[in-house]
Amino acid sequence: MNPVAEHASGLIYGFVGLGLMGGSFAKAVRTQILNQPGSRGDILACDARPDSLRQSEQDGIISEGFPPDKAGDMLSRCDVVFICLYPRATLEFLQLYRDAFKSGSVVTDISGVKTELLSSLPDCLRKDVDFISGHPMAGSEKEGYSHASASIFTGRNYILMPRAENTPEHLEFFKNLVTSIGFRRIIETDAVIHDHKIAFTSQLCHVIAAALVDSAEDTGITAFGGGSFEDLTRIAMINAPLWTELFFANRKELLYHLDSFEQSLQQLRDCLENGDRDKMQQFLEQVRIKRTDMSRIEQP
Amino acid sequence: MNPVAEHASGLIYGFVGLGLMGGSFAKAVRTQILNQPGSRGDILACDARPDSLRQSEQDGIISEGFPPDKAGDMLSRCDVVFICLYPRATLEFLQLYRDAFKSGSVVTDISGVKTELLSSLPDCLRKDVDFISGHPMAGSEKEGYSHASASIFTGRNYILMPRAENTPEHLEFFKNLVTSIGFRRIIETDAVIHDHKIAFTSQLCHVIAAALVDSAEDTGITAFGGGSFEDLTRIAMINAPLWTELFFANRKELLYHLDSFEQSLQQLRDCLENGDRDKMQQFLEQVRIKRTDMSRIEQP
Repeated sequence: MNPVAEHASGLIYGFVGLGLMGGSFAKAVRTQILNQPGSRGDILACDARPDSLRQSEQDGIISEGFPPDKAGDMLSRCDVVFICLYPRATLEFLQLYRDAFKSGSVVTDISGVKTELLSSLPDCLRKDVDFISGHPMAGSEKEGYSHASASIFTGRNYILMPRAENTPEHLEFFKNLVTSIGFRRIIETDAVIHDHKIAFTSQLCHVIAAALVDSAEDTGITAFGGGSFEDLTRIAMINAPLWTELFFANRKELLYHLDSFEQSLQQLRDCLENGDRDKMQQFLEQVRIKRTDMSRIEQP
Repeated sequence: MNPVAEHASGLIYGFVGLGLMGGSFAKAVRTQILNQPGSRGDILACDARPDSLRQSEQDGIISEGFPPDKAGDMLSRCDVVFICLYPRATLEFLQLYRDAFKSGSVVTDISGVKTELLSSLPDCLRKDVDFISGHPMAGSEKEGYSHASASIFTGRNYILMPRAENTPEHLEFFKNLVTSIGFRRIIETDAVIHDHKIAFTSQLCHVIAAALVDSAEDTGITAFGGGSFEDLTRIAMINAPLWTELFFANRKELLYHLDSFEQSLQQLRDCLENGDRDKMQQFLEQVRIKRTDMSRIEQP
């Protein structure tokens, strides 16, 4: 059995990108795994921001930081690598450092869009490196290592896209890992379904939130807020470069769901314009039932 | 000086409608005002549901409950009356019980739409009754007295629409009252501005949430949720009859903001369809700045 799978102890974890997500994963691995009684192992990280690396060393999260041009030195020592970069940068990193990964290592990513990444993998991955693709359904409207927190994963969904090449031992190890750091539910699917579903639950929601903020007459409107507008638009405090990339990487699926949303919106508009109160009330009652059913679906 | 304004002590508070809102107000008045050291006074309530009245008596919130056909008996004893009914029912109640209110009493409402109500007041209000119209920006997707809580008002906005007829003493008393039960910020405006702003912050948000839930392919979609979809659609667990009434009572304003929202949405769609990444990123950056500015506006 592979040493990674045999014991989750004594492993070297490497983080490529120590921002909000990479930093949160590193903190979670440190506190929920390595700091547990009897556990051994270490954490390394690579980031373009020396401040983040220094702060994380001071926090006792990582033991050593690497600038981007030393990424290869880090990778050669890591049993488990988290690539916490934007989607396109993830693919470029895998291509660039194809030969630097440690043989037998497990590598994962956090990309919000998967189809292109997973279809490109065969060209940029060695056969002795096991890439397990996942999408942690967690985040924050705040960016950077200074906002990273081990607790952002608690109770969240983790979407796992197993590949035929993944060994059962590595998959088992990895599921235990994400469960250990707080994820409650692991959904296994493939890249196409992932991108279709995520275009709705994540990207369309960000588009709607952005449009709603844009359409506000002024910023003083929140004086009239009772929580609804605030809840609908918190995610509009958006990382513009990242979300532009995500929207375009999943453009077809996003436009598909945008069409559906606009059709539903048109139905409500028709009720209003035609004075059709009964139809409006029926629509809202069906929506209430549907959303309440969604709330009940807590376990797979 | 009017006895109501002189001391907020020894007053009889009456609640017409003891559902989520009326029940929450009654609980807040009991715990935050009447149960305070040295305070006196009492709470009566009128509701069509005997169970709610009985439960509230058992909870020690109200001292006596009245069925709807005895509302007049209650009103004649009350110094302060909270009418916690749907907007149209509020107006009908005022008309029906015009002669039952105690002379010199302060009466308030919680209607989510104000223009029609306030313009109809002269016909259904005696000159010796002071009607102060307000909109508590608080609520819950759960209904009924059993979900009422004194804490739902904590830190919330309260929109006050003073009328020329309101005495300064009563307005002062009323502002102290809503502050005492937890509201943080009182915004004073008129019915027309209220309805215009609320159509955006509240009604449009509910329309969007309903459309988004309606457009979901299935209820299992939340397995792919990371919080965005959940936050955007919590308010879609909607009280259909109430919100149908609110939407139609404010139809013109709601359609105005719906147009604006759809125009913003169209801009984002255009960026996607035209492959205009730079424009998309600029749009999102402006939205981020605008929404962040909104978050900073905490005090008037």
